[in-house]
Amino acid sequence: MGSLTEKLIQLPDSTEDQCKQDEDFVDPWTVTCSSQSGPDYDKLIARFGSARVTDDLLKRFEAALPAGAKLHRFLRRGIFFSHRDIEPILNKIEKGEKFFLYTGRGPSSASLHVGHLIPFIFTKWLQDTFDVPLVIQLTDDEKYLWRGLKLDNIKRHSRENIKDIIACGFDVEKTFIFTDTDYISKSQAFYENILKIQRLVTFNQVKGIFGFGDSDCIGKIAFPAIQAAPSFSTSFPQIFGTSSKCQLCLIPCAIDQDPYFRMTRDVAPKLKYPKPSLLHSTFLPALGGAMTKMSASDSNNSIFLTDSANEIKNKINKYAFSGGGGTIEEHREKGGNCDVDVSYQYLRYFLDDDDRLEQIHRDYSSGQMLTGEIKKEIITVLQDLVIKHQQARKEITDEMVDRFMTPRSLNFTLNTTK
Amino acid sequence: MGSLTEKLIQLPDSTEDQCKQDEDFVDPWTVTCSSQSGPDYDKLIARFGSARVTDDLLKRFEAALPAGAKLHRFLRRGIFFSHRDIEPILNKIEKGEKFFLYTGRGPSSASLHVGHLIPFIFTKWLQDTFDVPLVIQLTDDEKYLWRGLKLDNIKRHSRENIKDIIACGFDVEKTFIFTDTDYISKSQAFYENILKIQRLVTFNQVKGIFGFGDSDCIGKIAFPAIQAAPSFSTSFPQIFGTSSKCQLCLIPCAIDQDPYFRMTRDVAPKLKYPKPSLLHSTFLPALGGAMTKMSASDSNNSIFLTDSANEIKNKINKYAFSGGGGTIEEHREKGGNCDVDVSYQYLRYFLDDDDRLEQIHRDYSSGQMLTGEIKKEIITVLQDLVIKHQQARKEITDEMVDRFMTPRSLNFTLNTTK
Repeated sequence: MGSLTEKLIQLPDSTEDQCKQDEDFVDPWTVTCSSQSGPDYDKLIARFGSARVTDDLLKRFEAALPAGAKLHRFLRRGIFFSHRDIEPILNKIEKGEKFFLYTGRGPSSASLHVGHLIPFIFTKWLQDTFDVPLVIQLTDDEKYLWRGLKLDNIKRHSRENIKDIIACGFDVEKTFIFTDTDYISKSQAFYENILKIQRLVTFNQVKGIFGFGDSDCIGKIAFPAIQAAPSFSTSFPQIFGTSSKCQLCLIPCAIDQDPYFRMTRDVAPKLKYPKPSLLHSTFLPALGGAMTKMSASDSNNSIFLTDSANEIKNKINKYAFSGGGGTIEEHREKGGNCDVDVSYQYLRYFLDDDDRLEQIHRDYSSGQMLTGEIKKEIITVLQDLVIKHQQARKEITDEMVDRFMTPRSLNFTLNTTK
Repeated sequence: MGSLTEKLIQLPDSTEDQCKQDEDFVDPWTVTCSSQSGPDYDKLIARFGSARVTDDLLKRFEAALPAGAKLHRFLRRGIFFSHRDIEPILNKIEKGEKFFLYTGRGPSSASLHVGHLIPFIFTKWLQDTFDVPLVIQLTDDEKYLWRGLKLDNIKRHSRENIKDIIACGFDVEKTFIFTDTDYISKSQAFYENILKIQRLVTFNQVKGIFGFGDSDCIGKIAFPAIQAAPSFSTSFPQIFGTSSKCQLCLIPCAIDQDPYFRMTRDVAPKLKYPKPSLLHSTFLPALGGAMTKMSASDSNNSIFLTDSANEIKNKINKYAFSGGGGTIEEHREKGGNCDVDVSYQYLRYFLDDDDRLEQIHRDYSSGQMLTGEIKKEIITVLQDLVIKHQQARKEITDEMVDRFMTPRSLNFTLNTTK
């Protein structure tokens, strides 16, 4: 998987002027954005050909939840805003039948920031709510092919990343986590699915989908099949058995990963496999705002999972782009702009209390709440999130990593009624 | 590996006239030939940029042999006629140091013909003579990507082919045989070398070397790295240890496989690995002559390892292209043409007795030996070869196949003095 939100919101060039002339650009390796309020997601849906997660769909989703459960805030707030074929998954849920989840990460560095957590927070909610098996891919081979890093370093990053992923609370009885270099060298079924996909996709197609050129290395050209293969449950005979029947797959991911799965969905019918369904998320903005880039090399532009409470406070206070007025007087008069205010945007992602969020929106928009005050709100939320994460991560041992990474059967039953 | 001599000597079109206008064409998937006496190998050497195996080189080779050993007839007779960097291997031999051998086969069908034996007969001689470890690759993934076959069928073919290969007499203590789908899913080191090669080779390069186009599938485009990787001993830590030091490799193969190793040799210095050395063989002609195609679908155009003594006799008598005169009188007067006579050519490959071969050449060229008589000679030689092979193959059990295919340490010592 691409590193999701990491390369977020990169300027096409270094000037905002140029940026504004351009359309947003989104592919698995680059996201450039022409507005401080983030990419135009409606245009993205139109360009990619996916579908909006509508209110009707959310109602259907909500009705299908187990008693007492509530839609995740990422759904309530349009953070997972786009989908492909979510209906067959809802059909399964309504019939009390099972599917499986697939998500992932590109292990480009050892340190994750809070943006990286989004697919995992959401996937954990899906796993807990629907009691389904989950596979998580770390594309160490992709990072090796795309970046100048040594394979050994990437493998070290992968293990560190896996500890952060496990710390999100995944159930070891229902979750298989793998790096490509490790699982390819353990599973003939996985390599065979890769081969089957590679036979069905031409260079012309990956050129069209990913923009590859003649001077790209052959590893990059063939790689999309490796991210595609886990969409098919036959890649995991230890989990799903050796029958050639393929289980339905739901992939929660940031929308920049969609090209991989557009390709996967094209190929699926030719292999007599079901097309995977997708739920796409928006991108968490960098601290400097939607037009700047979150990057591991600029530690001041994102909140890392290793930041101390004090670092979080200082970063938010110093660097979080404000939608407030230039002076207190101006702010009191005109109010703040929540659409571009990074503190408010982060609250949308990380503050679960809808009433409180609405209150903050009202107060900040009206000018009653000051920039320093909204920053204080998000500081508390992020400190709580990060400290809890650090506590959980401290408990993750190498043995637990090995256990999650061992190809093995998982504890679930497919296609039984509730 | 390509199937070596199988697709041998394919006409560019079905008419000889067209063929004569053209140059020979040789790549890993097609060999077309414009002359009844076979491809112009000097031109091939010039075009590929390899080197002739000269008399001086053969003398050096011979001097380096263990006491009592004799150069193999494939060297004495220019059947392994071309090389790349054989000198570093001879240096090793002269210093009493070791290298390793790598050869292979593309398992496109379950039935091998006698042409398929050439690299294996020669490799066995090299192994026995220099007491070196050997790896044999069966490119089942390649055959899946290039042909319309099902993977399961190719895997069945591979096991049958491996029985034939083992029947050539390889030492299980010194030989590792693997199919790509099996070994990739067992060895992280192999997949990592594949990735390292895939990162260093661009689409432009494989387009130039192999003639791939935009409508080729991404599996084909990436495949050359999989045939390249076994050239590096680090792909086999179970044999050569986990040190990153790479041992010298000698690859005996038909010259149509050279493009793979030209690519490999380009990549090697960038990985700080030694370039593999090569010894290239000519192509055994089909029964119908150098301008017809040996093919598993035309069982009358080649001698299969499953043919009975009677089938061999009938095929040679009926189908072996004759360089003899149209009538006995004409033959007695003008003599036969050994350069195009398939029986003579097969004797060059399979009759070990130099004096007897020379005698036959003299007698047939002068017209003293008749076509029926030279056919009788080659029938005896082939019957003996095939029957012995069948007897040896009968003894090969599935357990032996499993043993050869188990990644394990082999019995040899690298770089010790004799």
